[in-house]
Amino acid sequence: MAPAQREPKVVVLGGGSWGTTVASICARRSPTLQWVRSEDTAADINDNHRNSQYLGNDVALPDSLRATNDFSEAANCADVIVMGVPSHGFRGVLTELAKELRPWVPVVSLVKGLEQGTNYRMSQIVDEVLPGHPAGILAGPNIAREVADGYAAAAVLAMPDQHLAANLGDLFRTKRFRTYTTDDVVGVEMAGALKNVYAIAVGMGYSLGIGENTRAMVMARALREMSKLGEAMGGHRDTFAGVAGMGDLIVTCTSQRSRNRHVGEQLGAGKPIDEIIASMNQVAEGVKAASVIMEFAKTYNLNMPIAREVDSVVNHGATVEQAYQGLMAEKPGHEVHGSGF
Amino acid sequence: MAPAQREPKVVVLGGGSWGTTVASICARRSPTLQWVRSEDTAADINDNHRNSQYLGNDVALPDSLRATNDFSEAANCADVIVMGVPSHGFRGVLTELAKELRPWVPVVSLVKGLEQGTNYRMSQIVDEVLPGHPAGILAGPNIAREVADGYAAAAVLAMPDQHLAANLGDLFRTKRFRTYTTDDVVGVEMAGALKNVYAIAVGMGYSLGIGENTRAMVMARALREMSKLGEAMGGHRDTFAGVAGMGDLIVTCTSQRSRNRHVGEQLGAGKPIDEIIASMNQVAEGVKAASVIMEFAKTYNLNMPIAREVDSVVNHGATVEQAYQGLMAEKPGHEVHGSGF
Repeated sequence: MAPAQREPKVVVLGGGSWGTTVASICARRSPTLQWVRSEDTAADINDNHRNSQYLGNDVALPDSLRATNDFSEAANCADVIVMGVPSHGFRGVLTELAKELRPWVPVVSLVKGLEQGTNYRMSQIVDEVLPGHPAGILAGPNIAREVADGYAAAAVLAMPDQHLAANLGDLFRTKRFRTYTTDDVVGVEMAGALKNVYAIAVGMGYSLGIGENTRAMVMARALREMSKLGEAMGGHRDTFAGVAGMGDLIVTCTSQRSRNRHVGEQLGAGKPIDEIIASMNQVAEGVKAASVIMEFAKTYNLNMPIAREVDSVVNHGATVEQAYQGLMAEKPGHEVHGSGF
Repeated sequence: MAPAQREPKVVVLGGGSWGTTVASICARRSPTLQWVRSEDTAADINDNHRNSQYLGNDVALPDSLRATNDFSEAANCADVIVMGVPSHGFRGVLTELAKELRPWVPVVSLVKGLEQGTNYRMSQIVDEVLPGHPAGILAGPNIAREVADGYAAAAVLAMPDQHLAANLGDLFRTKRFRTYTTDDVVGVEMAGALKNVYAIAVGMGYSLGIGENTRAMVMARALREMSKLGEAMGGHRDTFAGVAGMGDLIVTCTSQRSRNRHVGEQLGAGKPIDEIIASMNQVAEGVKAASVIMEFAKTYNLNMPIAREVDSVVNHGATVEQAYQGLMAEKPGHEVHGSGF
């Protein structure tokens, strides 16, 4: 039996609802420090054991979770980095981190999106800014508030090295938070980035009054479409059929809390996209991702009909009715090898 | 260009809601005769263009659909047989059919269940009773009433020969009913038989007040479990990620009209299984399938934790709480290669 080893210190960067929830999960097992930009939030976490700005007053964080707004303190003590900052701030924070982080420290992203401009997955940014640091992602059907409230949920931790994934997996597990492992970083990252576009498609469907059969059809065909692109980019189809693929797709497409579903419904109600975006205080990633998928579809020479129709509504003035008519006009072919909807 | 050919005559056997709905779909493109046991139902279809017993008075069937209760008439004129009779009557009807059916006529089953006693898939019964006749299945997320009401839906037609599937596929398509094709008969049949057990598991979850994350977790892990068994039996994982797998699973697990979900909820409310079954006027296939999966799990030496817990509640007196605790006690492993929940 191996001798007892020093426990890894987990540092979570970011003070949002999901970063805080993951920090709470980690803090139940391992020493965990959360870096947040705001002094008030750090004090709220340290003194009141809550993050009222993002999780309200009813979610009690573990006493063992400590927060700081001193970036250097956080960067220096980290044995594992968990990146809970949004995609647009991801590279900036990593660049600051590069100056202080010790070598080999693994970086786990919580971000289900791509970098604007480069279309990079977050782990690609890590590879670029922090070469030599193993980079992965933790993702799944994880509405933050539900996890924080103690409802059971599952996620998958993807790291290129399977031994490392198995080791790190323990950091992200509680009795009610079930973290599976995989080596398919590309698949998990792409599933997280793509599903939002399909949630907009299903949201549009809600506004059209589609039935349960229709909704399931769109989700199943969405999974095939995601899987096709994901595989072309190096991911594995099993990931798309798993918790970060199908699992997250279901919640994102059907939950009333889903921002991307909401966008689709509002589009169906005839509201212009700018107005919808302006009325939301949080980003709906699928709006940006729609045109990105179209770029990928071109690069990989793939037909992505659902994404194409979402893009036509979001970016080219088509109506929701036209989008669904466009899909229904395609003749179904072989379920797996056919290229159409 | 090939010369015009004689149109195939489709014969649908069975007068239930789904058989009638599929007959209506076929009748829009091809000459179609529906065999029903009841003289009254045949008259209702022929004279009133409706099947009020199974589809109510509001669903108008196409004028071109003809019904008969003369089995020989139906058997003799068939170029394609569509089997809409329940699994317990399937072999009996086929045995009658064998005496009169012309050679080579393909048989398409609509049945998502296994034969009691043998655990045969329906196409296996066809292979045994009607050797030489190509046997397949049409399945998907298809709540009959919704399809009959004109909501869009998708299904997959599985036939061993892909050319035949492509040919037959046209018979089962309308503008709003999208029939994809595949050669994976085993996968589609097993997906249809297995999903009901998992719908009971999700139904139990509803009664426990599980969250949206949890529900998505159970469905994603159910898909993995189904896929594992389906592959061991010769099916393909892509089928399980498709309309007959994931698609049908979503509807069966979440629809308020789902009988199997209902069983799970009633079990969660503490009702004994016999009482639940007695109170339903239709069969909930998942109740029988739970013990069948356990037999398969043994045969193929697979761990099927969700099915095991459903079986323990349905057949061995465990409570719904114990079932979920049993699942949550398992440590998550590799998402694809792990053997546990």
